Amino acid sequence: MSVAFAGEYGSFGELAAVSYFGGKQQPVPVADFEHIFGAVKTGKTAFGILPIENSQAGSIHKNYDLLLHNGLYIIGEVLLRVSHCLLTNPGVGRRRIRTVYSHPQALDQCRNYLKRFGKVKTVPTSNTAAAVLKIKNEKLSGAAAIASMQAAIDYDMHVCAMGIEDNHQNTTRFLILSKKPYRDKKLPSGKMKTSVVFSTKNMPGALFRSLSVFALRDINLLKIESRPMPGKHFEYLFYLDFEGNATDEIQTNAIHNLNEITRFYRLLGSYPKGVMVNPTYRPKRRG
Amino acid sequence: MSVAFAGEYGSFGELAAVSYFGGKQQPVPVADFEHIFGAVKTGKTAFGILPIENSQAGSIHKNYDLLLHNGLYIIGEVLLRVSHCLLTNPGVGRRRIRTVYSHPQALDQCRNYLKRFGKVKTVPTSNTAAAVLKIKNEKLSGAAAIASMQAAIDYDMHVCAMGIEDNHQNTTRFLILSKKPYRDKKLPSGKMKTSVVFSTKNMPGALFRSLSVFALRDINLLKIESRPMPGKHFEYLFYLDFEGNATDEIQTNAIHNLNEITRFYRLLGSYPKGVMVNPTYRPKRRG
Repeated sequence: MSVAFAGEYGSFGELAAVSYFGGKQQPVPVADFEHIFGAVKTGKTAFGILPIENSQAGSIHKNYDLLLHNGLYIIGEVLLRVSHCLLTNPGVGRRRIRTVYSHPQALDQCRNYLKRFGKVKTVPTSNTAAAVLKIKNEKLSGAAAIASMQAAIDYDMHVCAMGIEDNHQNTTRFLILSKKPYRDKKLPSGKMKTSVVFSTKNMPGALFRSLSVFALRDINLLKIESRPMPGKHFEYLFYLDFEGNATDEIQTNAIHNLNEITRFYRLLGSYPKGVMVNPTYRPKRRG
Repeated sequence: MSVAFAGEYGSFGELAAVSYFGGKQQPVPVADFEHIFGAVKTGKTAFGILPIENSQAGSIHKNYDLLLHNGLYIIGEVLLRVSHCLLTNPGVGRRRIRTVYSHPQALDQCRNYLKRFGKVKTVPTSNTAAAVLKIKNEKLSGAAAIASMQAAIDYDMHVCAMGIEDNHQNTTRFLILSKKPYRDKKLPSGKMKTSVVFSTKNMPGALFRSLSVFALRDINLLKIESRPMPGKHFEYLFYLDFEGNATDEIQTNAIHNLNEITRFYRLLGSYPKGVMVNPTYRPKRRG
């Protein structure tokens, strides 16, 4: 049993998988987000884990598009806190650091921390693992890498500082994908959520009526987002998360009602509400 | 008269400024998004230009936060099509390219195009201008850079291919910021839009009532997005764009009504609706 994530071992995709499944599913790295869907659809892995929004950077529309074009279901979610470490080769002190390597996004997320160093040069790498390998393989003594604690474990690096991200509230929401809808434990409605995507022909009245379908039934909305459809004036896609299971009676009625007034509707899945977690780390990989 | 943009000359920030203002405002590069606000507040520049959402990557929450914490007004917008070129040193043919340099996001946006090359190595740089300078200064003959047409003009590079982005519908929306609200031409209500941010205490009923304030007055909604407030269960920020001017009578009434049911409300500005544009390019910079 395994779960596909995009990126390298030690990336946030793998940390999210480990945090969600514990040791029960083997994380399998794939090249990119599209390959996550491929791995699950072909049965190469049982599950996939896909980032869908970040508290600072917003929803990843591209991954919503992939959800729409591939027939997988969301069966769970996890909100992973984004946490970075400053890693050096053993024996390198903080004062000797003149260059910091990492993915541009990680460098950006630690900008205030780096300012305290005075004059350090930041150098971008393809991913955080590449930054660690750079300073390790070239035995750089005046350099550091920004990466996860997992990378420190995997590559035997010195953790010069941890939790160096400027915003400690920064979280990324990952979705767990499967070929079959969630059918595990029957949870009470308040502990479940349902994600749907729909479009309406003309926004103003139609959106209001779409939401009334839920408001009139006292169904809590957990997320709403409009997205203009490219090239189509006044046509929007809506991403909606609401409380409850799509198979519960009230929710079934609401969805039936919604279908009367939408042009396009797609159920992405009903699944247990996730919580915000700090990443958990596995032991060093062998081989 | 000038406009602050984040990044290097030739970046999308500058292209957006040139596309919006024509030659009327001198684009001034600043280090990052925060510095755009600083430049306008201190009067160093008359305007600022800030990316706020991308059709693939979503809303940039971080920049919404900056809008909330700095008292500037939105006075305009432009939707810039994201277009990339493959640049080489003069005389280098497509077949000799083994390495492609660019910002990771640009490399990602041209992934399908790059696949057609067969085996090319992609190398990340801090920004697209840095990629061009790398191949130019080191006179690399087996390498290319992904950057804008403006970079080709500025650095006298050979344009090996243009429009190489995988998604030709990909646009970034930029906001024009000023210390004073928009007061130029009096446009009809249908040609204006207003951006507000607000929060409600408890989402389900309150959001529905917030939207009813607009629906009951037949005011068109152009964007709605909920964003969970970190650490606060069931508290959300809402980003809302609606048609019309905040000073029009119907809109004034709607806002008054909205204020009755929100915990927090902030007008970001009323401004003419923008259109999607292809970037325009200026002549090579001197000095």
